Amino acid sequence: MPKINAERLWSSIIDTARVGGTPKGGVRRLTLSDEDRQIRDWFTAECVDLGGTVTVDEIGNMFALFPGENDNLQPIAMGSHLDTQPTGGKFDGILGVLAGLEALRTLRESGKRTHHPLMLVNWTNEEGARFAPAMLGSGVHAGVFTLDYACALKDDDGLAFGDELERIGYRGPASIGSVRFAAMFELHIEQGPILEREEMVIGAVNGVQGIRWFDVKASGAAAHSGSTPMDMRADALLAAAELVRAVQSIGVSEPDAVATVGHVEVLPNSRNVVPGEVNLTVDLRNPDETALDRMDALLRTEVARIAQAGPCTLEISEFWRSPAVLFDDDCLAAVAEGAAQAGHETRRMFSGAGHDSVYAARVAPTAMIFVPCAGGVSHNEAESATPQDCATGAQVLLNAVLSYDRQLAAKA
Amino acid sequence: MPKINAERLWSSIIDTARVGGTPKGGVRRLTLSDEDRQIRDWFTAECVDLGGTVTVDEIGNMFALFPGENDNLQPIAMGSHLDTQPTGGKFDGILGVLAGLEALRTLRESGKRTHHPLMLVNWTNEEGARFAPAMLGSGVHAGVFTLDYACALKDDDGLAFGDELERIGYRGPASIGSVRFAAMFELHIEQGPILEREEMVIGAVNGVQGIRWFDVKASGAAAHSGSTPMDMRADALLAAAELVRAVQSIGVSEPDAVATVGHVEVLPNSRNVVPGEVNLTVDLRNPDETALDRMDALLRTEVARIAQAGPCTLEISEFWRSPAVLFDDDCLAAVAEGAAQAGHETRRMFSGAGHDSVYAARVAPTAMIFVPCAGGVSHNEAESATPQDCATGAQVLLNAVLSYDRQLAAKA
Repeated sequence: MPKINAERLWSSIIDTARVGGTPKGGVRRLTLSDEDRQIRDWFTAECVDLGGTVTVDEIGNMFALFPGENDNLQPIAMGSHLDTQPTGGKFDGILGVLAGLEALRTLRESGKRTHHPLMLVNWTNEEGARFAPAMLGSGVHAGVFTLDYACALKDDDGLAFGDELERIGYRGPASIGSVRFAAMFELHIEQGPILEREEMVIGAVNGVQGIRWFDVKASGAAAHSGSTPMDMRADALLAAAELVRAVQSIGVSEPDAVATVGHVEVLPNSRNVVPGEVNLTVDLRNPDETALDRMDALLRTEVARIAQAGPCTLEISEFWRSPAVLFDDDCLAAVAEGAAQAGHETRRMFSGAGHDSVYAARVAPTAMIFVPCAGGVSHNEAESATPQDCATGAQVLLNAVLSYDRQLAAKA
Repeated sequence: MPKINAERLWSSIIDTARVGGTPKGGVRRLTLSDEDRQIRDWFTAECVDLGGTVTVDEIGNMFALFPGENDNLQPIAMGSHLDTQPTGGKFDGILGVLAGLEALRTLRESGKRTHHPLMLVNWTNEEGARFAPAMLGSGVHAGVFTLDYACALKDDDGLAFGDELERIGYRGPASIGSVRFAAMFELHIEQGPILEREEMVIGAVNGVQGIRWFDVKASGAAAHSGSTPMDMRADALLAAAELVRAVQSIGVSEPDAVATVGHVEVLPNSRNVVPGEVNLTVDLRNPDETALDRMDALLRTEVARIAQAGPCTLEISEFWRSPAVLFDDDCLAAVAEGAAQAGHETRRMFSGAGHDSVYAARVAPTAMIFVPCAGGVSHNEAESATPQDCATGAQVLLNAVLSYDRQLAAKA
């Protein structure tokens, strides 16, 4: 059983964090920036150095292919993304790429060959921070978005995605979707508190929660806080407070559900004015679409109930949704076996955040592996994971790929 | 019984609204601005034209004295303020000055003389919009603030109150508090909805509510809305929503009370982040200080209760307070008599907003008269009052002054 080199992996993490590194120890490596080009160039060089062949597609997704025993078979892929949030950390995304790289290095050192070729993937623009929406490269690969749609996206400075892709030299020749793989394994930090709280190291991610985002506007009447009697008010904040409590109830109404009011805008937001309007957002998530439908219906019922009670009116509109994704059982079995070989039980869990694997799962059997991050903190310069947990994650990733390779070979 | 000239009053309102007039029909006449100088110059000229003598004190308060039958007696004062909010209306403040001017014009035309001299007052910086706090000139006059404190105040551009007072030429020679008056009557728009809803024209203002302003901070933990299970959250917005409801309960717990959360700041205020911190303001008002004490205690109990329930912590601090003021019974009797003479019953009410009369009441018997404004809207370019209601208010002001003058003469 080849054993990954924990120190080499950690060095890669520390070294790559210098590309866009911030004074506070975080990373700013926005999609299609000069830093993105720099890390892509590094990725290419490392893969070529390991004997890989790098193919870039028309949206800049990078696929490094490593030979197996039978190169007529589709490769088993590992990977994630190299871009970060504006004030991101050293782990979100790149850990999945570096762990894959470490797995490939380990295999090469061990002299062991898989039946299938292997592939290391860097998806373009997972974060969606500079160019929204998120998970763009994997989404275009899976046919969720068109290439034209992606290339026309503009950043806050009005620069177009397509132009910036050209500028950094990563508009590749491979047509969208032409690069195929037999399966995808993505290692990622959890970005949540569960593994840490439960003192577990490996999350086997069953799937990704369905997400529905809503905008709610509560409308009352702005009025002087001193001269407007309580019974002559239409206080939009009271209606909003009622809804905040209702959303909490919805969150605890189903197992595995979460429900959040994250953004609140009060108008006119003055100490001595009764709020006339409150705009708030609702974020409902559930790994089960049927349960999510129930939460959706309950939210609308609560909005109607609060409006009915008066005196404020409420309007709700769906802003965006992302359907629930269930990952592949065989891939998950490989993760469980790989973890057991590394001496770890897995915590079966759902991802609350979106990942490239959501879209990869549309084109190939896919699973994800989570490792803990300190305090569940992510999208933050303070994002942190231990060298040991990163190494364990990389080992499980390698083991899972080898296990899946054996599964496929046994079936063939 | 001298009868005021409704058309002349309305012309004054329309004419003076041009000084700082905005395209939307409002007025921007900030304290110690060029527009403030212009309206002060106009005020001086009108008063002198009517036979008045204008005295300006060291903080720019303007006192125009008009002879009575016995000029050894202290004058009976009318007045309010000429400054406005940044996007203020045509009535807030200036109506009380123009109605006093109209009363003086009417008296002069009628040839009638009061026993006491009369005085028309323009208090400096009632609004506190450019230089906080509000009611500054009357407050300095009454000894609530020192002149040095006032002169050192800076606006958002860093300009000092004292320098700007000098610049517009209204740092007067009269020492603070040296100008005395026997009583003060202030006509003002209600800035609330009660008169309009009850189809009344004249409010006899018993007093001004005591006000207490608090800041409350709810602290939880910001966390990813997707990957943080409901039972691992410390959602500061939930605690805040609980407090919003509690404040509403406090508002309806006592007669004549109001309680408002007007300002809410959610951090980080992002759609997919559980709020980690919420800062909100609480505004409690009651005309009865003892009842206000009970509301204050109840608020602190509720804050403690919500913190106790967990998981968020709450901190409360008093930001500012203004004690309740009861106006003078004799002055109020004069208002009631004056209204009856004008064919109107009075609605006894408390002012929910602060006024110069709060501080005037510390140095002389004082009362206020309210007239309706459309929808209770004020501090807004849409502020509106009818010519008829303004005229009725001016008539009641004049009648009340004459009534009070007779009262004093009868006592003498």
